[in-house]
Amino acid sequence: MTLTKSPVKGMKDILPEEMALRDYVTSLIKDTYKSFGFNPIETPCMEHIGNLTSKQGGENENLIYKIMKRGEKLSLEGASSPDDLVDNGLRYDLTISLCRFYANNADKLPNPFKALQIGNVWRADRPQKGRFRQFTQCDIDVLGDSSMLAEIELITATSTLLGKLGFRGFTVRLNHRQLLKGMAEYAGFPADSTEKVFIILDKMDKIGFDGVSKELLAAGFTQASVDAYLAFFLPEEGQSLLDLCAAKLAAPAAGATGNPDRDSAAIEDIRTIMACVEQVKDSERQGGFHLVFDPALVRGMGYYTGPIFEIDMAEFNSSVAGGGRYDQLVGNFTSLQTPACGFSIGFERIIAILLEQGYAIPDKGKKIAFFAEKGLDKDALCAMLSEAGNERHLGATVLVTTKNKNSKFQREQLEKEGYIEFRNFHGKG
Amino acid sequence: MTLTKSPVKGMKDILPEEMALRDYVTSLIKDTYKSFGFNPIETPCMEHIGNLTSKQGGENENLIYKIMKRGEKLSLEGASSPDDLVDNGLRYDLTISLCRFYANNADKLPNPFKALQIGNVWRADRPQKGRFRQFTQCDIDVLGDSSMLAEIELITATSTLLGKLGFRGFTVRLNHRQLLKGMAEYAGFPADSTEKVFIILDKMDKIGFDGVSKELLAAGFTQASVDAYLAFFLPEEGQSLLDLCAAKLAAPAAGATGNPDRDSAAIEDIRTIMACVEQVKDSERQGGFHLVFDPALVRGMGYYTGPIFEIDMAEFNSSVAGGGRYDQLVGNFTSLQTPACGFSIGFERIIAILLEQGYAIPDKGKKIAFFAEKGLDKDALCAMLSEAGNERHLGATVLVTTKNKNSKFQREQLEKEGYIEFRNFHGKG
Repeated sequence: MTLTKSPVKGMKDILPEEMALRDYVTSLIKDTYKSFGFNPIETPCMEHIGNLTSKQGGENENLIYKIMKRGEKLSLEGASSPDDLVDNGLRYDLTISLCRFYANNADKLPNPFKALQIGNVWRADRPQKGRFRQFTQCDIDVLGDSSMLAEIELITATSTLLGKLGFRGFTVRLNHRQLLKGMAEYAGFPADSTEKVFIILDKMDKIGFDGVSKELLAAGFTQASVDAYLAFFLPEEGQSLLDLCAAKLAAPAAGATGNPDRDSAAIEDIRTIMACVEQVKDSERQGGFHLVFDPALVRGMGYYTGPIFEIDMAEFNSSVAGGGRYDQLVGNFTSLQTPACGFSIGFERIIAILLEQGYAIPDKGKKIAFFAEKGLDKDALCAMLSEAGNERHLGATVLVTTKNKNSKFQREQLEKEGYIEFRNFHGKG
Repeated sequence: MTLTKSPVKGMKDILPEEMALRDYVTSLIKDTYKSFGFNPIETPCMEHIGNLTSKQGGENENLIYKIMKRGEKLSLEGASSPDDLVDNGLRYDLTISLCRFYANNADKLPNPFKALQIGNVWRADRPQKGRFRQFTQCDIDVLGDSSMLAEIELITATSTLLGKLGFRGFTVRLNHRQLLKGMAEYAGFPADSTEKVFIILDKMDKIGFDGVSKELLAAGFTQASVDAYLAFFLPEEGQSLLDLCAAKLAAPAAGATGNPDRDSAAIEDIRTIMACVEQVKDSERQGGFHLVFDPALVRGMGYYTGPIFEIDMAEFNSSVAGGGRYDQLVGNFTSLQTPACGFSIGFERIIAILLEQGYAIPDKGKKIAFFAEKGLDKDALCAMLSEAGNERHLGATVLVTTKNKNSKFQREQLEKEGYIEFRNFHGKG
C-alpha cells in the first residue's frame, strides 16, 4: 500500500485559520448579493468535454483536467489519441457552466435572472507561488437584461461587498468593446488586426503610453494610425477622456470606416453607468471607490460585446474583480439570443490580501475550552457536558477536550484559535 | 461546435429554490458544530489515485472518476492498460482525504483535533432516482482522542443539529465492533466467517429475526451457533439488550474462544456513552431522540474498530447519519497511530426530506421587487437606485429588475420566490 501524505501536485489543504476566513468571506458575499436579489445556484464541477473545448475558453482550454471514460466505453485498443478515452472534464471557469445552466433551465427561472455562483474550478497550470490548480471562483451575472441596469447593479453590489470587507479607495475602471472597435477604426488600423492592437493596448498599465506607442510601431502599424490612436489618451486640460473619445468618434476623418451610431450608443451606455453609479454611491458603505472611464481597458476574453469593467487596488498592485457584457455566449447553447452581463470576483486574491493584512474576523461570541482530565468518571463527565450545553445555549463556543500531558502547549494553541476561558474538570478520585 | 445543454450524465444543476435550502442547512451545520469546537477544513477534490485504490473504500473503489495524466507524461504508446494513463482521481468520500490531511498537517493542528468537512464527492454509480454522481458529504471527526468523549460529543452535536432542523423522535442506534466480534465468538462461528455473519446480520431491519435465522442456516452455519447467536436478541422481560449481552459475554461456554476483558471494556464504552448522552440530553433542543443499543447494527465499512452508530428516522424510512471509531486508518498514512472517531451526515438525504416536507426557511427580512419600466431616463433610474440602496441598508432584499411585457407572470414568479412588495418606476415621458 503506497499512500501519499501530500495533496495532489499544485493543490492545497486548507487549514482552520484560512478556512474560517474563507467561510466568513463566502457568507458575506452570499448575504450581500442576495440583498441585491441575486440567486445562488450550483452546477456540476464536471462538464461535457465538448462544452469545454469549444474555443470560448482561450488559453484555459489547454489546461483542462480530463476525465476518463468508464466501463465498456473505455477501450485502449480503439483509441488513436488519448482524447478518444475522454468524455468529461473539470471546468476551468464558471461561465461555460452558467451558460449551459441557463440554456437548460431558463423556463424555470425568473427573467431577467440574477445568478450567484461560487465554486471550485481547475486548471493544470504551471505551479507558482500563491496560485493553485484548484481554486474558488465567484461569479455574479445578470441574464436576460439588455439595459445598463445590469452593469449598474453589478458595480454597485460589488463595491458594496468590497466596502464591507474594509477595502478603501479602490478604482472601478470602465470601457466598452464597441468603443474599442470604434477607436481602432477611427485610427485606421486594418479590421483584421484589431486583436493584435488590443493585446498591445492591454499593456498600458505595465509599459505606459510610450511603451504602447513603440510596440504598435514595431508591430508594423503606420505612424499616422498610431498617432491617431494614442490621441485618445491625450485630453485637453479640463477635458475628460470620455468627452475626448465622444468628440473624436463623432467626427471621423473623411473616408474612415466608422460607425457613428454604434459609437454614440456605446458612449451613452458609459455615461448612463457612470452617472447612476456615481449618484447612488454611498462612499461610506462602498469604500469610497473611484469610477473612471479607461479607454485602455481591454479584458482578455474574446466573448465580450459591450461594457467591460475591472476593479483595481493600487495598494496591492492587483485586480480583484473583472467582467463585462457578453450578449452572444448563451445563444451558443440555445437558438434564443440572451443578453448577459457578469462580474467575476477574485476570491483567492481577496483571501490572500486579507490574510496578508491579518484581517480579524468580526467576533462571534465567547470561546471557552473545557479540559477533561484523564480518568474522569461518568458522573463528572456528565456534569461537565451539562455545563457545556448550558454555555452553548447562551451562545458560546465550547470545546470539550481531553487534557494532554503537555497542557501548557495545548492551552497556548487554543489561545491562538481565540479561546479566552479555560475550565478544568477532574474526577473524584 | 457541438454544445450540450444538459448536465453530465447522472449529475444535476441546482436551482435557486433548492440552493437556498442547501445554503441554509450548510450554515446551520457550520454554526452548530463550530459551537462544539469543530474546525472547518477543506481538502482538494482530487486525490492521488494510489490513495483512492488502497482497498479501504470497498465497493466505492470501482466507481472512481479517474483523471488522465497531462503533457509529456501522457503517452498512449507506452500504456498497457487505461490505468497507466491515470495519475489522480476524484474522491469518493471525505474519509481518505481527512486521514491524508491529518497525516500531512498534524504538527500544525490542535491535539485532539475536531474537524468539520463539507464537500462534493463523486461516484460513477448506476443512475437512480434521487441519487446523483456528484453529491455533497458532510463529515465531522475527532482525531487524537481515545476516550468516549469523542463519541458523546459527536452524538450530542449531531442530535442538536437535527433538532434545530425540526426533526423529532429520531433514533440513535449504537453498537460496538468489539462486541460484534465477541458475540460471534460466543456463538461459535468460525473466526474466518464473521464477515459473512455480519453481512446477514445487517439485514435485520429488512428481513427480521426469522429472516436472519434462515439466511444464517442457509449459509451453512450450525443450528447451535445460530441459536446461540440469536439469543442475544431475546432478552427476558425487563432485561435490556445491553444487560443481556453483558451477562452472556461474561459467562462464555467452556472452551469458547472469547475475550472477556475486551468484551467488558466494550460494554463499559457503551454504558459510558449511553449514560452521558442520556443525562445531558435536552429533549427540547435535540428533537427528543431515543438512544438505543442495537446488537444488530453493523455499518458497512471494514475500518471501524470501536463504537459504531447510526441515526434513523422511521418516519422517512431512512438513515440520515452514521459513523464510528476507526483507530487504525490514520496510521496507514503515518507511522503514528491516531485514534479517530467520526460521523457522516447524510446531507443529500436531509435536503431531500426537507424539500418533501416543504420546509420553510426561517425568514430573513422583507423582499421587495422594483420594476424599471422601459425607457426610464437617467434621473428616474438614479432615484430608483437610491431608494433601493436605502431599503437594503434597512435590511431588505431589493431586486431591481426591468419590467417585462408580461408583467403579471413576472410578478407571480417573484411572489413564489418570497417577494411581498412591488414598486413600479417609470420615466417622466
